[in-house]
Amino acid sequence: MSTFGNYFRVTTAGESHGKTVACIIENCPPGLSLVESDIQPQLNRRRPGQSAISTPRDEKDRVTIGSGCEFGRTLGTPILLTVPNEDQRPHDYGSKTIDLYPRPSHADWTYLEKYGTKASSGGGRSSARETIARVAAGAVAEKWLREAYGVEIVAFVSSVGNIKLFEDRPSTDSDDIDSLSSNPKFLELVDSLTREKVDEFLPVRCPDTAVAKRMEDKIAELRDQHDSTGGTVTCIIRGCPSGLGEPCFDKLEALLAHAMMSIPATKGFEIGSGFRGAEMRGSRHNDPFVSTAAADDATPSSGAGIPPSRLQTKTNHSGGIQGGISNGMPIFFRVAFKPPATISQEQTTARYDASGEGILAAKGRHDPNVTPRAVPIVEAMAALTIADALMAQHARQMGMKIAAARR
Amino acid sequence: MSTFGNYFRVTTAGESHGKTVACIIENCPPGLSLVESDIQPQLNRRRPGQSAISTPRDEKDRVTIGSGCEFGRTLGTPILLTVPNEDQRPHDYGSKTIDLYPRPSHADWTYLEKYGTKASSGGGRSSARETIARVAAGAVAEKWLREAYGVEIVAFVSSVGNIKLFEDRPSTDSDDIDSLSSNPKFLELVDSLTREKVDEFLPVRCPDTAVAKRMEDKIAELRDQHDSTGGTVTCIIRGCPSGLGEPCFDKLEALLAHAMMSIPATKGFEIGSGFRGAEMRGSRHNDPFVSTAAADDATPSSGAGIPPSRLQTKTNHSGGIQGGISNGMPIFFRVAFKPPATISQEQTTARYDASGEGILAAKGRHDPNVTPRAVPIVEAMAALTIADALMAQHARQMGMKIAAARR
Amino acid sequence: MSTFGNYFRVTTAGESHGKTVACIIENCPPGLSLVESDIQPQLNRRRPGQSAISTPRDEKDRVTIGSGCEFGRTLGTPILLTVPNEDQRPHDYGSKTIDLYPRPSHADWTYLEKYGTKASSGGGRSSARETIARVAAGAVAEKWLREAYGVEIVAFVSSVGNIKLFEDRPSTDSDDIDSLSSNPKFLELVDSLTREKVDEFLPVRCPDTAVAKRMEDKIAELRDQHDSTGGTVTCIIRGCPSGLGEPCFDKLEALLAHAMMSIPATKGFEIGSGFRGAEMRGSRHNDPFVSTAAADDATPSSGAGIPPSRLQTKTNHSGGIQGGISNGMPIFFRVAFKPPATISQEQTTARYDASGEGILAAKGRHDPNVTPRAVPIVEAMAALTIADALMAQHARQMGMKIAAARR
Amino acid sequence: MSTFGNYFRVTTAGESHGKTVACIIENCPPGLSLVESDIQPQLNRRRPGQSAISTPRDEKDRVTIGSGCEFGRTLGTPILLTVPNEDQRPHDYGSKTIDLYPRPSHADWTYLEKYGTKASSGGGRSSARETIARVAAGAVAEKWLREAYGVEIVAFVSSVGNIKLFEDRPSTDSDDIDSLSSNPKFLELVDSLTREKVDEFLPVRCPDTAVAKRMEDKIAELRDQHDSTGGTVTCIIRGCPSGLGEPCFDKLEALLAHAMMSIPATKGFEIGSGFRGAEMRGSRHNDPFVSTAAADDATPSSGAGIPPSRLQTKTNHSGGIQGGISNGMPIFFRVAFKPPATISQEQTTARYDASGEGILAAKGRHDPNVTPRAVPIVEAMAALTIADALMAQHARQMGMKIAAARR
Repeated sequence: MSTFGNYFRVTTAGESHGKTVACIIENCPPGLSLVESDIQPQLNRRRPGQSAISTPRDEKDRVTIGSGCEFGRTLGTPILLTVPNEDQRPHDYGSKTIDLYPRPSHADWTYLEKYGTKASSGGGRSSARETIARVAAGAVAEKWLREAYGVEIVAFVSSVGNIKLFEDRPSTDSDDIDSLSSNPKFLELVDSLTREKVDEFLPVRCPDTAVAKRMEDKIAELRDQHDSTGGTVTCIIRGCPSGLGEPCFDKLEALLAHAMMSIPATKGFEIGSGFRGAEMRGSRHNDPFVSTAAADDATPSSGAGIPPSRLQTKTNHSGGIQGGISNGMPIFFRVAFKPPATISQEQTTARYDASGEGILAAKGRHDPNVTPRAVPIVEAMAALTIADALMAQHARQMGMKIAAARR
Repeated sequence: MSTFGNYFRVTTAGESHGKTVACIIENCPPGLSLVESDIQPQLNRRRPGQSAISTPRDEKDRVTIGSGCEFGRTLGTPILLTVPNEDQRPHDYGSKTIDLYPRPSHADWTYLEKYGTKASSGGGRSSARETIARVAAGAVAEKWLREAYGVEIVAFVSSVGNIKLFEDRPSTDSDDIDSLSSNPKFLELVDSLTREKVDEFLPVRCPDTAVAKRMEDKIAELRDQHDSTGGTVTCIIRGCPSGLGEPCFDKLEALLAHAMMSIPATKGFEIGSGFRGAEMRGSRHNDPFVSTAAADDATPSSGAGIPPSRLQTKTNHSGGIQGGISNGMPIFFRVAFKPPATISQEQTTARYDASGEGILAAKGRHDPNVTPRAVPIVEAMAALTIADALMAQHARQMGMKIAAARR
Repeated sequence: MSTFGNYFRVTTAGESHGKTVACIIENCPPGLSLVESDIQPQLNRRRPGQSAISTPRDEKDRVTIGSGCEFGRTLGTPILLTVPNEDQRPHDYGSKTIDLYPRPSHADWTYLEKYGTKASSGGGRSSARETIARVAAGAVAEKWLREAYGVEIVAFVSSVGNIKLFEDRPSTDSDDIDSLSSNPKFLELVDSLTREKVDEFLPVRCPDTAVAKRMEDKIAELRDQHDSTGGTVTCIIRGCPSGLGEPCFDKLEALLAHAMMSIPATKGFEIGSGFRGAEMRGSRHNDPFVSTAAADDATPSSGAGIPPSRLQTKTNHSGGIQGGISNGMPIFFRVAFKPPATISQEQTTARYDASGEGILAAKGRHDPNVTPRAVPIVEAMAALTIADALMAQHARQMGMKIAAARR
Repeated sequence: MSTFGNYFRVTTAGESHGKTVACIIENCPPGLSLVESDIQPQLNRRRPGQSAISTPRDEKDRVTIGSGCEFGRTLGTPILLTVPNEDQRPHDYGSKTIDLYPRPSHADWTYLEKYGTKASSGGGRSSARETIARVAAGAVAEKWLREAYGVEIVAFVSSVGNIKLFEDRPSTDSDDIDSLSSNPKFLELVDSLTREKVDEFLPVRCPDTAVAKRMEDKIAELRDQHDSTGGTVTCIIRGCPSGLGEPCFDKLEALLAHAMMSIPATKGFEIGSGFRGAEMRGSRHNDPFVSTAAADDATPSSGAGIPPSRLQTKTNHSGGIQGGISNGMPIFFRVAFKPPATISQEQTTARYDASGEGILAAKGRHDPNVTPRAVPIVEAMAALTIADALMAQHARQMGMKIAAARR
């Protein structure tokens, strides 16, 4: 489906060669201050052409609010956001190699298998332009979350190829081993990292000067080799109210995993201690509770209007979610992105009609690594997930409050 | 929500101390042969008490079909499956430490934050008994998938703590490095592993005698230390028709991630090359197409009634899904489980009322590792995901066929 | 689907010849006091055998709460309600006429067309026993609505055949003509009718001694003729908070219409002035606003915790809903039920295999009129609709409040 | 919600004073020929200004396909349709009476109660412009239904005020009485009425010259009196395949009722015999089956690719739906529309702030009757309902076929 969410619900449309990329947001709370300039910055962060190592196409991507707002405030009715496609000519079918060969690890082949028809762009909605609608909708969700609850969502590039911001340490199950959730350098980012800080590390958006430099060199090297590489993006959500997530099937980590794995090119998701947590022993992995009042630092989840939980945890291997429900601690997770499939070197592959093999060569310049541009997309999907989970919990809470008031 | 799927749709109910665990399956195709003994075997595989290293409670868990079937065939109407809880007495609230302290990394605290009420069992639906309903529903889904399409779903334990069936090899991005998707030992399992084979390796369900022995010893060691450990489960889906998955938000890997991350105690999900794929270069990660007819071995996806795709891929870093849509190749993914939170050693933690800290000691015997029992749960959720995606695609396909017939 | 609602969500299962009729209620607010005896009375009101003019079968229909409650309070987790079928033997297929002929105006034929399979009972889920699950779920919804908001839902039989509690008056568009919404006798019922009062008029549940007597005689007459007749049920909802309904597609009247037309044997739905309203002129049909404080009588919608609207309307042709949203005035609507298709006289009809015509004779005793037993079913569906709409509005409201608090 | 349907799914956006009215259609089958001129005619039929008796505003309403199509064919991806608002200036808040008084029987008041905010247009999405998106989406649905299945949907005005195309005959339950479903004049329309024929009776779209003239005069008379009147629209669906509708809650008549009662200004819905059917006796209301082959006339439901049912019914009091499932006979239903609330005469009503009463006078010219323009809206909602139900059934059918093929 092209609909995400049940309460704060987004429906998107648009592919490379149509006129418009668009989304409709249903159930955004009324009375929220909202103008185009609240949305445009995240679209700009997503845009290609932000540096020498990303694709030089300049897509512009100006957003227009078509409905649901008046005098700079949301009405509570569906919000239409549109972004025109500048280059919308579908190419003519012809003898080009791209019409003869499905591109390896692209969606060309599976879209044909699924829909029985072939779009100019091959994989139709697998086009990266689809993500414009996510980012636009996400910017609205996070405006509400920030203004009403003080939620902050910040993502950054945590690895490019085998260059990692946080090196794995060999797991021996002894006391000097631990997951990311115990790494002091990471915990500092959890506390304080901002988007402004992340963008100081453009073009790679990895918040460490030395590591970012190595990543940049690596990407440049692959670009020169007409090759590509993958990477990971880590995302932090601060100030998320406790109580979000709808067990048993819509646990908050399940919703986040769904959201993240729906982003093109993702191959993995982990929350809190993640795959490394699977190697730990329970006595170390368990997060003991402490009184929030007694905690040294300020309460981590002081959402406006939502009183902070009276307990928090000493450690946070849980990644802010226990039993599928947010506990008020910072939420963090990591998403793996594969190397872009489009590379400008020749690849041997089969023809659409299975009549034989041949050589496919992609032309033009392509992103050798998508993770820096994926940062605002991950943030957007996180915002949509939390906004939706908040409304689900609100539906329950208000009924509980009214019932309690009457008893 | 306690509902999974949009077409092949399952709703579950039940927690530790109620009378019944149950599910209702909507839209199961009519005419499918179905009796209780089709479902019971997977419930038995899930049951505790299968060996010395799992919890010795004997829960029995006999399933009854309450509606939707007649004379051993499905009617197309909702199927009710119920499993009684044998020990259903909710305990009295009192002065027990479990009533004073939320158990660390359990759902006790977050359920209270979410629902404002405390069940006897603490975390209500976070109880492992909830998974009975998943396994029962999944057994119905996979019966349909197997009989109508020849789909085979097999999961196994791929690691326990830091003992791994497939060791990571250091990533240097040179040619001798690769993800699991290129490991010949793994590829052999992809081709041929069966549930019967997996169960030969009870109690740990890791299909390698030597590794399984080490895992068993490890679990026993932790049990003796009143501690626990995590692990990973890997799942293979053979014979899945191409064309499944509903971009852009319901890509097949997103649906699988949602399904898996909804299982209690999961911390991570990866598909195909996964996190390791993020370290590869595109020229190696891309999966070239080859003609299915020309491929050496038999077509991998010969679903009955669904003709196999005329192309397949040489390698399978994609894990059977490209652009969010199945391509007919085997699907495989890996799920991380944290160490069980319940350990029978003392833990220092805070009181519910934040009035101070104290010592919580869990009594009784508990599973020091959940992965062997998680195997049928992972299989069940995989079956539910594929069945739902199949029906979504069928809704589209039949309309396409009829329209084409008329042109 | 067998699922109703998006927030307060009910999934049902069960047909005539299975073991069990059941429902699972998701998202019922936690902390609600709930035991079986809260549910049983409505099931008893629905039960056949309450009088000489309804079918003498005694079905009993004892409900059990299988999950989601503890110590008499809801946990917020899914509530399982089950009612056993006493006579659950599916009949053997054989040479009976019922196996050769689809019963006219029954669901036998369409179920076969849809599902390709034939249940013993013919129309599978079209069995009246399916409505047990609705009534059980509705009883839970209305308990919440009554306790938390003071909502009262009362339905009654407003016509049987051509015997009407409120006679149509010829429409001449002059001032002495009007819809039911201006009938003083009806308005008195709107203000004060209770279920206890309705049940004083058993067996027909029409709150007028003389009319009820005529109806009873009419039904007896048709029973003696081995025939049947239809009728209408009118339902009143008092104390419904304003603001419910989700335009544009889920207007409150659209949700109510959906709910009512999903009840077996319904042929029509009208809200407020209804079909008669279509004959009125706008200047008379419009409902002028008046200050609630200035109104003579007490505020009609004093839901607990929900402050009453500061405006109400002088007349109520709108039936309590304007622009698809409740306005705090009483909601009322009318539902048409066709004459029961099962009659114990011979009918000429065609064979399943279209091989020819023949005579079908239903045996046994059947309800010659379903409206008295439909009363609790209509009430149940009304309760489920309002509960769901309330939660939808709560999801929005709480976000609005929190946002406003922060500004 | 502003989303309709689960499979063929439409999401709409737009109100009077925004820039754009839009819809996104998900899951429209790929390969359908589709250009703007397939959609525009129904938008033109909906447009005001088609005659002296409707509002003279010329809104134009040109539709653009923004995504989901290429080279005149659908891709299977979301289809974006946009229609610009020509006059999109929201008015300034000020001292106008419309800012002081909620208009009687408009949505001004309830939108304020629900959303806590006031749009320029008062009732936000209750604006008639919202229906543009329905009509556009419906045109796509019916193109698919017509081309692939031969489904024909035709609506017409069946009454204006108390002027009725088919007069009620007094119900005495004797043999000369019957519902519309037995009226030969109506049955002829069921067989043969076309949209072209209906439009010959513009401006009122009632297919009877004499009655249409009386209706036109009536509307003109009310216009001159600055008043308005209601009416009914009847809709016929021919060639609908059997087997559609998803019991128990999504019976086909329930879905149609939901769809129709979501149209602004509707007050009632009835299917087949409707409210009149409630007055009939079962022996006359039951529709006996006959062999389709033996029937005099051609099979009524010869959907392309869908073989016609081998049985049909002699009479059709059921209105083409039995047990909530289409039986292949023509479907017909009737929808009641209230008199438009906007009238250009003075009305006494209360102020928003309940501070007192006053006189509200609407200015300008308004539609004294909406039924002629409602005709394409009813058709659109019928098409969306049937398309969605078809895909639901296809999802089931294809699984059944594949399963059967393998047995």
